[in-house]
Amino acid sequence: MSQYFLSHIERMAGYVPGEQPRDGGFIKLNTNENPYPPSPRVLEAIKIAVGDRLRLYPDPVGTAFRKVAANLHGVEPEMILAGNGSDDLLTIITRAFAGPGDLVAYPTPSYILYRTLAEIQGARSVEIPFVEKWDLDPASFARVHPRVAFIANPNSPSGTALSVEGLRTIARAVDCPLVIDEAYVNFAEGDAVDLIRDHPNVIVLRTLSKGYSLAGLRVGYLIARPEMVAGLIKVKDSYNCDTLSLAGACAALEDRDYLAETSSRIKATRSRLTAAMRGLGYLVPESQANFVWCAEGPPASATYEILKARKILVRLMRYPGQADGIRITVGTDAEIDSLLEALKA
Amino acid sequence: MSQYFLSHIERMAGYVPGEQPRDGGFIKLNTNENPYPPSPRVLEAIKIAVGDRLRLYPDPVGTAFRKVAANLHGVEPEMILAGNGSDDLLTIITRAFAGPGDLVAYPTPSYILYRTLAEIQGARSVEIPFVEKWDLDPASFARVHPRVAFIANPNSPSGTALSVEGLRTIARAVDCPLVIDEAYVNFAEGDAVDLIRDHPNVIVLRTLSKGYSLAGLRVGYLIARPEMVAGLIKVKDSYNCDTLSLAGACAALEDRDYLAETSSRIKATRSRLTAAMRGLGYLVPESQANFVWCAEGPPASATYEILKARKILVRLMRYPGQADGIRITVGTDAEIDSLLEALKA
Repeated sequence: MSQYFLSHIERMAGYVPGEQPRDGGFIKLNTNENPYPPSPRVLEAIKIAVGDRLRLYPDPVGTAFRKVAANLHGVEPEMILAGNGSDDLLTIITRAFAGPGDLVAYPTPSYILYRTLAEIQGARSVEIPFVEKWDLDPASFARVHPRVAFIANPNSPSGTALSVEGLRTIARAVDCPLVIDEAYVNFAEGDAVDLIRDHPNVIVLRTLSKGYSLAGLRVGYLIARPEMVAGLIKVKDSYNCDTLSLAGACAALEDRDYLAETSSRIKATRSRLTAAMRGLGYLVPESQANFVWCAEGPPASATYEILKARKILVRLMRYPGQADGIRITVGTDAEIDSLLEALKA
Repeated sequence: MSQYFLSHIERMAGYVPGEQPRDGGFIKLNTNENPYPPSPRVLEAIKIAVGDRLRLYPDPVGTAFRKVAANLHGVEPEMILAGNGSDDLLTIITRAFAGPGDLVAYPTPSYILYRTLAEIQGARSVEIPFVEKWDLDPASFARVHPRVAFIANPNSPSGTALSVEGLRTIARAVDCPLVIDEAYVNFAEGDAVDLIRDHPNVIVLRTLSKGYSLAGLRVGYLIARPEMVAGLIKVKDSYNCDTLSLAGACAALEDRDYLAETSSRIKATRSRLTAAMRGLGYLVPESQANFVWCAEGPPASATYEILKARKILVRLMRYPGQADGIRITVGTDAEIDSLLEALKA
């Protein structure tokens, strides 16, 4: 069989998503899903769209969604591109900028998918280690001259975020597109959208999976200069977003109050979880995301197993040259209470 | 801006999907959508799935859907891979098998996307002309030694289909994966799924966009040997199918009566449309799809314009070295009546 696959595809392992137990009964704190349901307005908008129109192809560029997103961010609709989750957009970006042998740069430890996407392209990855306090040295990106650079901000697994000014320095230092992956920005202070005005190489990426509780719907979008978006459209599948997702996504972005309310609850629970995990001896960086990173304390794998035995799933993360850690999604207060009770027992 | 894109991406034009007028009022016979609504069971299944579970990621491989599709085709679930429309699967396949400079073969005239996907990869396209009566010479595929070959069967724009034995000869002749794109098979006699048993290089591709009236939902799937599927999974986005699409797709495949009924109506209308267009002087091959191909008669562009002026959209197709033609989707009887009245006037 294998003789047909490109050799670099044959060799690679493939990305392994977090466990998705099918049997239920688990408290799932392992894939950073939002513990609160989507906005009732989103569910209503989708239900209205479930009808005979599904026989027709969707709008190839999601014109209505582009307008809503543009309005939210104060940019032009031509600066918005919707994707089948932000993973789709990360795929499109990697294919547009990095060919075989080209360099793709991103920090480590960070979102492991950046490496997988480079591998699928036959590109080479350059992993830039964080310096002290989860900061990045702009020169370390610039000196490798990548064809494209990714920075998850807030970062996973650390939960930490670089300042906008820090990102600006990197955008200025590199001579390639800088993708600022703001998957977790709805739980953070500030964002990097303004950088696009002065830096034509900046692409800001968003997802509705986390802040908007819509991981199951698969919608992400990016914000970039119109010329950048026009080039990326050539690489995307013609109809990459379906009719129902686009309808739900418009409603999600429009219900700003719901987002504010659920994010605020998650941030409050995050503070409590952070303090409790520190109390258990872990080093927990101040999180700007909907998860906390616990390392350099009691053995991470033992903690993972104790929790799993009680049907609480967290993510055990191992990075070469780093201490193991566990990444705990901020669930509801009740879920976090269960987790803390299990750990204290 | 453009300096950032890979040079072959910068140079390429990108695929242009059929016109999707937003203002309504058109009789749309240009993108082979099904004129009948999706099965009521599909709409019901989707509505049931619209709920709080959307906060969770979907099943990465669509386990429930794999079982339903496997049951339909009498294969194992490990032989099924779902995609975000069959375009997603065509993308995955091209990326898995064809790198820069590699050869991708497909007949011409056929689905233009095969060339676009090769271009995005920086691969080279070899277009194999049809011989008499829309047949293909197996040797013409074998002698170019492509890394992957695509055959739309039934073909677009011709609507014609090769026999299973014809496909078997090609599968045996080539030393690469042969993708048999059965997008229109629900309107044809027979299919090629059985070839997978004897030919490990065969991949059969299906979509729910045409036969199942679900172009707006974006679901396709492929059937291939488990080893082939396992390799392709490494290339796909982790969560390429959303929760609602998977729920609807299961219901669609399970409602076999509805498919049989709507397909049968379309085939009856197709016969009438074929006879009428022949009566107007076009050469119309016997169609196995939900459209008819009209060429070598009255000027195709004039016919296209006449219809468009009356708000009837058909697809004007131009292929190098071929006469222009119009491809007319088989609509409802009333829609086809309107089209024929417009042409007779």
